[in-house]
Amino acid sequence: MTPIAANSDLPPLVARMEETADLVTMALDQLLPHGEGPESRLTEAMRYAALGPGKRLRPFFALETGRLLGADENAVLRAACALECIHAYSLVHDDLPCMDDDDLRRGQLTVHRAYDEATAVLAGDALQSVAFEILAHEDTHDDPLVRCELVKMLARASGAEGMAGGQMIDLLGVQGDIGGVARMQRLKTGALIVYAFQIPLVVADASDRDGLALTHFAQDLGLAYQIADDVLDVEGDPDQMGKGAGGKDAARGKTNFVTLLGLEESKARVRILSDQAKSRLEIFGSDARYLRESVDFVLNRRK
Amino acid sequence: MTPIAANSDLPPLVARMEETADLVTMALDQLLPHGEGPESRLTEAMRYAALGPGKRLRPFFALETGRLLGADENAVLRAACALECIHAYSLVHDDLPCMDDDDLRRGQLTVHRAYDEATAVLAGDALQSVAFEILAHEDTHDDPLVRCELVKMLARASGAEGMAGGQMIDLLGVQGDIGGVARMQRLKTGALIVYAFQIPLVVADASDRDGLALTHFAQDLGLAYQIADDVLDVEGDPDQMGKGAGGKDAARGKTNFVTLLGLEESKARVRILSDQAKSRLEIFGSDARYLRESVDFVLNRRK
Repeated sequence: MTPIAANSDLPPLVARMEETADLVTMALDQLLPHGEGPESRLTEAMRYAALGPGKRLRPFFALETGRLLGADENAVLRAACALECIHAYSLVHDDLPCMDDDDLRRGQLTVHRAYDEATAVLAGDALQSVAFEILAHEDTHDDPLVRCELVKMLARASGAEGMAGGQMIDLLGVQGDIGGVARMQRLKTGALIVYAFQIPLVVADASDRDGLALTHFAQDLGLAYQIADDVLDVEGDPDQMGKGAGGKDAARGKTNFVTLLGLEESKARVRILSDQAKSRLEIFGSDARYLRESVDFVLNRRK
Repeated sequence: MTPIAANSDLPPLVARMEETADLVTMALDQLLPHGEGPESRLTEAMRYAALGPGKRLRPFFALETGRLLGADENAVLRAACALECIHAYSLVHDDLPCMDDDDLRRGQLTVHRAYDEATAVLAGDALQSVAFEILAHEDTHDDPLVRCELVKMLARASGAEGMAGGQMIDLLGVQGDIGGVARMQRLKTGALIVYAFQIPLVVADASDRDGLALTHFAQDLGLAYQIADDVLDVEGDPDQMGKGAGGKDAARGKTNFVTLLGLEESKARVRILSDQAKSRLEIFGSDARYLRESVDFVLNRRK
């Protein structure tokens, strides 16, 4: 994947991430339905939610790891789009008035503000359905067993034992210690990040050694990502974030990594986890260059 | 399947439907997760939504048709449970304040009233995820291609080109003629009813002849069911329905079959469609006895 001319003055990693994001956005545009009748309001809202600005971080992890493992790119791209649909649906429902009640997301009106609440509920629902439709479709992979594995793992990562379960804990507020906060994040955001790496592992039928290394990498990165997010909640500039910041969790009385560990200790843990994550990639040598570089890029993304 | 003793004084069809409903409820109880941590509030809400009183009509159609076709009962039962999870999630989201705003469902508090709105959104979301997890699991069928087909068809029936699309049209209110109302119902309720019959057809790898007959049966029944529902909206006794009735659609200014056709013409169409549906089963002879009898039972269910 050679950087295209327009991006040639960007650092190689940034250019590569932007190209991957464009690839994913174009593929999503092809995969998402266009409603033909009055239900086009629904498909428009789905497209608004999924095709708007976004870093496509999870798809980047899937595709970059797919390149590392020599996995079929079409299969990984389609599965990465399914994952992005789940991520997009979770943001739409998370932003609802009965959840986080956010008006802005990435600088744009949230779906329930741009449309209405009922449309936002349905758009989230239908984005979840289309994710599984994409994965189960024969175009994703010749082997139906691979498609079934992709469906099963995404369903588990999204449901009560994954993302939705983590959101429930987050809504109730974590009681207690750092273990509880870590478990909440592992379900709420970690499960989908780990799934991004499971996609190429399943598609490439990777070895146990590679699987273990990349799963550990994903877990370290996922935890670091959430701690960095809590740091950002305190330090972030609201203008840069496109939504309210400045200790929102603390103001709501929510327990998070920073309220439990303090700012400096939280930052130290991000550094330790970041080094640990990178060390997981040693077995891949220089082939894992972009994946390794992406760790700091992702964790320092707003500094 | 012999009627059990306690039901021996019921008509055979009713006993058979009740036994099937019990079978499905028991299977759902096994398949739905039990949360171990604070997320157990979510899994409780999912169980409340899916295991509460319900006729399990769609699973009955799937299982009864499976018996007719000699399909593997375990496979059909698991897929029927997945379908019931989707049906249950759609009711939970449909009842939300931003949608139909209903306090009661089948005589019980709706999920957002028994719990809260955020929990109801998440419970619906996680019920959708678990449906696809059940279907893709190797316990559902030995052949992963069958599992993929079941996933793909359920995803399509649930999403923007099926149930969610129909709900969008219903929320906007159908503009125009009987064709528009029929299309709305075909998406909103018809798609899942048709899926109930697709389950045994796929599992049994049925012939085109059987497939066509049963798909037409499902379509006739689905349309008749929706017209009967609109009749019920006017004629139903609120006490019997467990939620408000008495021309709710008309009071909200919604176009439906009765507002377009009138009560008598609507009832006549239910009778014509009911006869037509039953005629689709002629090729199966007396083996389709219960399926045939269920048409009138379902359509006259509250008279």
